[in-house]
Amino acid sequence: MQIAVIGRGDCSAEEYETAMTAGHLIAGNCGTVCCGGLGGVMEAACRGAKEAGGTTVGILPDTGDGNPYLDLVIRTGMGQARNVILVNSADSVIAVGGGYGTLSEIAIALKTGKPVFGLSTWNIEGVFACSRPEEAVNLAVRAARQSQRSRNPPDRGGSV
Amino acid sequence: MQIAVIGRGDCSAEEYETAMTAGHLIAGNCGTVCCGGLGGVMEAACRGAKEAGGTTVGILPDTGDGNPYLDLVIRTGMGQARNVILVNSADSVIAVGGGYGTLSEIAIALKTGKPVFGLSTWNIEGVFACSRPEEAVNLAVRAARQSQRSRNPPDRGGSV
Amino acid sequence: MQIAVIGRGDCSAEEYETAMTAGHLIAGNCGTVCCGGLGGVMEAACRGAKEAGGTTVGILPDTGDGNPYLDLVIRTGMGQARNVILVNSADSVIAVGGGYGTLSEIAIALKTGKPVFGLSTWNIEGVFACSRPEEAVNLAVRAARQSQRSRNPPDRGGSV
Amino acid sequence: MQIAVIGRGDCSAEEYETAMTAGHLIAGNCGTVCCGGLGGVMEAACRGAKEAGGTTVGILPDTGDGNPYLDLVIRTGMGQARNVILVNSADSVIAVGGGYGTLSEIAIALKTGKPVFGLSTWNIEGVFACSRPEEAVNLAVRAARQSQRSRNPPDRGGSV
Repeated sequence: MQIAVIGRGDCSAEEYETAMTAGHLIAGNCGTVCCGGLGGVMEAACRGAKEAGGTTVGILPDTGDGNPYLDLVIRTGMGQARNVILVNSADSVIAVGGGYGTLSEIAIALKTGKPVFGLSTWNIEGVFACSRPEEAVNLAVRAARQSQRSRNPPDRGGSV
Repeated sequence: MQIAVIGRGDCSAEEYETAMTAGHLIAGNCGTVCCGGLGGVMEAACRGAKEAGGTTVGILPDTGDGNPYLDLVIRTGMGQARNVILVNSADSVIAVGGGYGTLSEIAIALKTGKPVFGLSTWNIEGVFACSRPEEAVNLAVRAARQSQRSRNPPDRGGSV
Repeated sequence: MQIAVIGRGDCSAEEYETAMTAGHLIAGNCGTVCCGGLGGVMEAACRGAKEAGGTTVGILPDTGDGNPYLDLVIRTGMGQARNVILVNSADSVIAVGGGYGTLSEIAIALKTGKPVFGLSTWNIEGVFACSRPEEAVNLAVRAARQSQRSRNPPDRGGSV
Repeated sequence: MQIAVIGRGDCSAEEYETAMTAGHLIAGNCGTVCCGGLGGVMEAACRGAKEAGGTTVGILPDTGDGNPYLDLVIRTGMGQARNVILVNSADSVIAVGGGYGTLSEIAIALKTGKPVFGLSTWNIEGVFACSRPEEAVNLAVRAARQSQRSRNPPDRGGSV
């Protein structure tokens, strides 16, 4: 189960706290935190996940090393086009605050049918607005499990 | 001068008319129409440009041939990531109506500092709302010329 | 008809001359020269095409303006991944000399079934080695026309 | 330490065996196996890594689920352009046999200065030919550690 946490690289202290809680809870639900690999909300989600013993993946716009809480580093070297890869790779998406980059990720997610759960983010039709990280993570985990089940129905055996 | 016209592949008759007028006017201003290469608003803008003797480029998500009004076909094979290439390639952007794909392009444009002029499109801070295609094209042409000048200042000789 | 000319950004004087002749001949055959948009072989092919009144497209790795002989500039911002877009966009490929970047383009072309004609380039099975630019262009033009016909068979009406 | 194992999706039984041994040894050296996520050599390397308790990442050309031995799935939806992301993400590369797709990855790696160790693969200048998977993995691990050290010199504190 891969859940993307998206938001600004230069977020507020409150957004950092929210994203860290979200990352912690995703890891607690055995989910992998996927993100854009940089600072702010991305770093916070990874930091929270690592504190809970979880796994983190950063899909970077450049070919650097990203934030210090990444287990795996995908160096796209593709700038903002990495936003599309991040969304494609996620089973569901949690948006925390966010600027235009986040908006582009929300739009790609909705375009490609990925569920998006928002915490004080862009008010776009299709985003499910949540009031607390617990709510967003619960819904994102449930949506991710449904998405996985529809890809690997149990009666067909599923993947190994 | 490369001006992107963005909007849905399955647009309304009114949006088609608006995009066709915009394409016609861009060509009349010696601009090249860049688009996502498919139908709807993309096709309309190219059709209008060809009627005015202009040049058109389609930056396709797939590796096909796109709509019948393309002079040049860029076959990215990269799905929605082509939206980023389209915006990167444009000196300014005109959005006509639009769904989530268009929203992603608007967001990338604003993220990367490209001016966006809107005709009945998403109401996002940073988009300059216009009431008629003439207004949008005039502003987009002026913005594109400014963008070119700032890249190739005349006192430095500019490009050949 | 879009024909890619590929080769090093820092080529020899002889390769520059060869690529310029190839570009000139492609334009004389009503083909569009597609290239990676930078210097060396890429610039030479565009320069030759412009001298013959042809059209040129540069598919850049960055978001700059490329060489001075480009009619259209596709700013991918995707580094070496633009090699794949260039090959996807071409009906056939001419390789002049070349380093590892050129080798990657040859490999992608052969992987995706695009014909490759070589002038003093990598000796890879599948590349058709030519001795002069006239030969390479003649064969590349013929291959491009066949590729277009197979996509738009005349009995089906083809595209407009 | 991220080590890419590259090769054909439809490999020989001998190549499968070789790739599986390589994956097993990479995991035994605490390396993460990165691959293109599909069958053949890619699957074998992941299977070997999982048997040794290691971690695997598949960087897919499509948006599917890849082979059954992937811990993390990066769904690029970018076709052969994913080859560039795979090479960018690797600290060093091991090539097992291989067709044109593998050749493109070798070329990109050499273009961008990544060390490549080959097992019965393309004979390209710059590829270090190895006779057994043990040799290739030992050298790839050493090269990856050097690459990491040069990015995070110990006197600067390195990453957290």
